[in-house]
Amino acid sequence: MPAPSQNVERWGVYEVSLPGPQSGNPFVGVRLSASFQYRHRSVEVDGFYDGAGVYRIRFMPDEIGEWTYVTRSNRPELDGKTGQFACTPASARNHGPVRVQRISHFGYEDGAPYFPVGTTCYAWIHQGEALEEQTLATLRSSPFNKLRMCVFPKDYIYNKNEPPYYPFERNAAGESDFTRFNPSFFQHLEKRVRDLETLGIEADLILFHPYDRWGYSKMTAGADDRYLRYVVARLAAYRNVWWSMANEFDFMKEKTMADWDRFFRIVEESDPYHHLRSIHNGFILYDHSKPWVTHVSMQSSDLEKAREWVANYKKPVIFDECKYEGNIPRRWGSISAPELVRRFWVGTVSGAYVGHGETYLDANDVLWWSKGGVLHGESPQRIAFLRRILDEGPAEGLNNLSTYYLGAGREGRYYLFYFDFNQPAEYTFELAPGAQYRAEIVDPWEMTITPVEGTFEGKFTMKLPGKPHLAVRFRKIG
Amino acid sequence: MPAPSQNVERWGVYEVSLPGPQSGNPFVGVRLSASFQYRHRSVEVDGFYDGAGVYRIRFMPDEIGEWTYVTRSNRPELDGKTGQFACTPASARNHGPVRVQRISHFGYEDGAPYFPVGTTCYAWIHQGEALEEQTLATLRSSPFNKLRMCVFPKDYIYNKNEPPYYPFERNAAGESDFTRFNPSFFQHLEKRVRDLETLGIEADLILFHPYDRWGYSKMTAGADDRYLRYVVARLAAYRNVWWSMANEFDFMKEKTMADWDRFFRIVEESDPYHHLRSIHNGFILYDHSKPWVTHVSMQSSDLEKAREWVANYKKPVIFDECKYEGNIPRRWGSISAPELVRRFWVGTVSGAYVGHGETYLDANDVLWWSKGGVLHGESPQRIAFLRRILDEGPAEGLNNLSTYYLGAGREGRYYLFYFDFNQPAEYTFELAPGAQYRAEIVDPWEMTITPVEGTFEGKFTMKLPGKPHLAVRFRKIG
Repeated sequence: MPAPSQNVERWGVYEVSLPGPQSGNPFVGVRLSASFQYRHRSVEVDGFYDGAGVYRIRFMPDEIGEWTYVTRSNRPELDGKTGQFACTPASARNHGPVRVQRISHFGYEDGAPYFPVGTTCYAWIHQGEALEEQTLATLRSSPFNKLRMCVFPKDYIYNKNEPPYYPFERNAAGESDFTRFNPSFFQHLEKRVRDLETLGIEADLILFHPYDRWGYSKMTAGADDRYLRYVVARLAAYRNVWWSMANEFDFMKEKTMADWDRFFRIVEESDPYHHLRSIHNGFILYDHSKPWVTHVSMQSSDLEKAREWVANYKKPVIFDECKYEGNIPRRWGSISAPELVRRFWVGTVSGAYVGHGETYLDANDVLWWSKGGVLHGESPQRIAFLRRILDEGPAEGLNNLSTYYLGAGREGRYYLFYFDFNQPAEYTFELAPGAQYRAEIVDPWEMTITPVEGTFEGKFTMKLPGKPHLAVRFRKIG
Repeated sequence: MPAPSQNVERWGVYEVSLPGPQSGNPFVGVRLSASFQYRHRSVEVDGFYDGAGVYRIRFMPDEIGEWTYVTRSNRPELDGKTGQFACTPASARNHGPVRVQRISHFGYEDGAPYFPVGTTCYAWIHQGEALEEQTLATLRSSPFNKLRMCVFPKDYIYNKNEPPYYPFERNAAGESDFTRFNPSFFQHLEKRVRDLETLGIEADLILFHPYDRWGYSKMTAGADDRYLRYVVARLAAYRNVWWSMANEFDFMKEKTMADWDRFFRIVEESDPYHHLRSIHNGFILYDHSKPWVTHVSMQSSDLEKAREWVANYKKPVIFDECKYEGNIPRRWGSISAPELVRRFWVGTVSGAYVGHGETYLDANDVLWWSKGGVLHGESPQRIAFLRRILDEGPAEGLNNLSTYYLGAGREGRYYLFYFDFNQPAEYTFELAPGAQYRAEIVDPWEMTITPVEGTFEGKFTMKLPGKPHLAVRFRKIG
C-alpha cells in the first residue's frame, strides 16, 4: 500500500489524476473507472479525460475513515493504479448532499434541514468573468440556496451572445465535433459549481434545453448518452449537484419520451451518489411517478395543485417556474412582486417549494433569469422573510394540513395559515388538542410578525385584521 | 267584440282577471288558459288561481296593434271569455326582455345593448318591508342591472329568520300543504320583481335551492312540477324575469339529473316568451350544451376558463359566483375588493360576464349577499367603472381576441387588453390593419382613463407604465 496521498473531508471531492494516452480520441476510445473501497464496501466510479493527456477520477466519500482504490482501464498505463486516503469529518458548513426526506421534503445528508429556496440564472456561466463574479456577489447576499442553471449555452430572447466556452471542439466554421469534449468548458462549469458550493447553494444543473443554435439540442442518441456520462463522471463528486434532465423538455421536438426515460436511467446508473433527479416541463408533464424521478420540478402557476401532486406522487414538489417578477412583454416574465410573493406563500402552505426568477428589461439585456448580474425586484427580500419563517419552523418541513383556508405545519406543534386574497375578520381554528399555542399575525409583504395576545388551545375563534395577504403562525408553547 | 278594456305597452303586462270557483282545491282542480291573437298568430298562455275566488291570466304582448283573446277552462264560468286590447309602443325605458345575441352576448329585444352586471341578494324578498325597501334604495344607486334571488325562503348561515310569507299554505304545526299555494307570497314576489323592473334590473329567479328547513327542496315530483307551472304562469309576463332552475343544484341530493332536465322542459314549454334559462352549479357542472340552456351560469374562480366555455358551448357565460367581497370566515365569502375587481376584468376580457356578491360580517347578520340592505365594499364603484367601460364599448359586446395577455373587443374597431398581475413595461400590439386607433391606459382600481399621446395602427410597440392591474383600450378613430 502506498502512503495516504491526501486527506479529504466527508462529502468533499477526492481526485485521482493520472497521465495517459493522447492519441486517437481519448473521449471515445479510453475507458477508465475506479473501485473505491471502505472496509467491505466498494463503490464504482467512472473517470474522464480532461485533455492534455490527463485523466481524472473524482470521488465523494461518505464514510469517515480509510479508503483505498484501484483503477480499471482498457489502457494498461491507466489500469491497476491504487491509492488510499483518509476521509475526515465534514467541516462546519458542509452538510453533505441534499436528499429527499419525509416523503415530500428535503434535508442534508447529515440531518441538517434544507428548505429549497431557489432562483434561476439559466445561462449565467456563459457570460464571462465580470458578470459571473457579479452574479456570485449578488447570490452571496440573497436568500437563495438553489440555482437552476443550464450546462449548455443558451440562445433565446435577451440572450443572443456567444459563450466564452463551447462544450465541444469546434472547427474554423464553428461546427462542433460532438465526439470531442472541450475540457476548458467543463473546468469552467466545475469552477462555478464549486463557487456555488462555497455559498451554500445547490446547483440544479439542466442537462438539456431547447434554446439552442449550436446543435446541442439535436445531437444523436450516441452523442447525448456520451455527454451525459461525461458530465456525471466530472460533476457527480460535487455534493451540491442536482440533475435536471431538461428545461421545458417537451419543447425539444427531436427527443421522444423514451429518450427522456433513457437519460434518467443513464444518469441514475452513472451517479454513485444518487444526486436528486428531475425534469422540468413546458406544456406536457413527464410522468413523475417513474421511479428514477426523485422530486417534481414543476412549471405551473397553479400553486394549490401541489397538494394533489404531493398526495399522488408522494414526492417533493418544487415549482421551479411559476412565472417571474419582471416587466418584459411576456406573460411569464412580467408578474408583479406581490403576485410572486403570493405564489411563494400559496405554494409553501400547499406543502411545496417555490422558485424565483426575475425578468426586468435592461439596456444591456442583462436579465437575472438568464444572465445573472444584480437583482432589481421587490420579491427577494420577502422571499428572505419567508425563508426565515421556514427556518424558524419545524425542521421536517411543512405539510399541507388545511385546505379550507390553506394551512400547513405539523399537527400538535406548528401551524402556518395563509389567507391569500381572503380577508376573514375572524376564523375558527382547530388545532390538535392537548397543547397550548402562541399566535402571531405574519404580513408577508410588510415582513412583520405581530404577536397575538393570549394563548390558544384546541378549537377557538380568533379575530383577524380583515386585510388580505396575511398569515397566522401558531407555535406550541414549551 | 267588446270594447277595448285597457291598453298596454309593448312588453308590458296585460292581465285578465275573472271570478271563479273557490270550492275544492282550485290550484289542482281548475285548468285555465287563454289564446291571445294578433292577426293570424296566436299565443297560448296559462292562467292561475290567485286566491279569494279570483283567477288571472297575464300576457306580455310583443307586437304593437290590436290583440284579442279567448279563455279556455274545464270550468264553464271561466271558459270562453273574450276580450281585446291595444298594444301601444314601449315607453322610453322599456326595451323588452333580454335575449341571447351574437352567440355569447345579450341584448334587449328592441336592440338596445345589455351587458349583465349582476349582484346577489338571495333572500332579500324574505326580510320584511323595511329591509326590502332599503335594498331597493341601495340597488337604485348601484351599477347592477341583474339580481340573483331565490323564490323560496332560505335557511343558511347568517339567514336563520323566518320569512314574512310562506309559498304554501301551512297548518298550525307549520306543515306545508304543497297542493295549495299562498297567493300573498306570490303577490309579494311579483311586487319585488316589478320593483326591480322599475330600476331596470333583471330578476334572475332561482326556482330551487338546497338551503331549506321547510321542505321546499324535498317535495314530490308532482309538487315540483305544479310549483314550476304556477310560478311561470304568474311571472312569465314580466319582461325582466330570468329562470334559474337552481342554485348549487348538485347540493340538492333528492334531485336527479333527470329531474333537472324535466324542470328545464316544463319551464321552456310553459313560458310563451322564452325568458332566459340557466342552472347554477355547486361542484358538478350541468351539461350546458343541452338545448334548453340559454346561457352558462357558472360558479367558478377560474375566470379565464370562460374562453373555453364560450368556444365549446357557443353560449354566453356568466360567472354568477366567483366568490364574494367580504370578511366572513369562509373562503368563498372573504376575498378582497381588489381581487373581486380583478376577477371582473379577467372574466370580461375572456369574453364573459361576472357577478358580484358581498359578505361583510354584520352585528345584525344583514349580509348583502343574502338579505340585501346596504353595500359596504370597495368593489361596487369599480364595477360601475367597468360598466361604464362596457357601455362605451361596442354594443355587440366584447369577444376574447387575445389569449397571450388577455384582450377582448371587436377586430378593426375596439380592443381592451387587461394585464392582470402582469406589469410589462412595453408590449407589441397587433391590431387589425387599415384603421387608426387612439389608446388609453385604464386603471380599474383608481378608476382613471389616461390618453396615450399619438395614434396607433397595425403592429407597434407601446411603452406601458410597468405597474400591475392596468388595462389598455384602443378605439378606432372616426
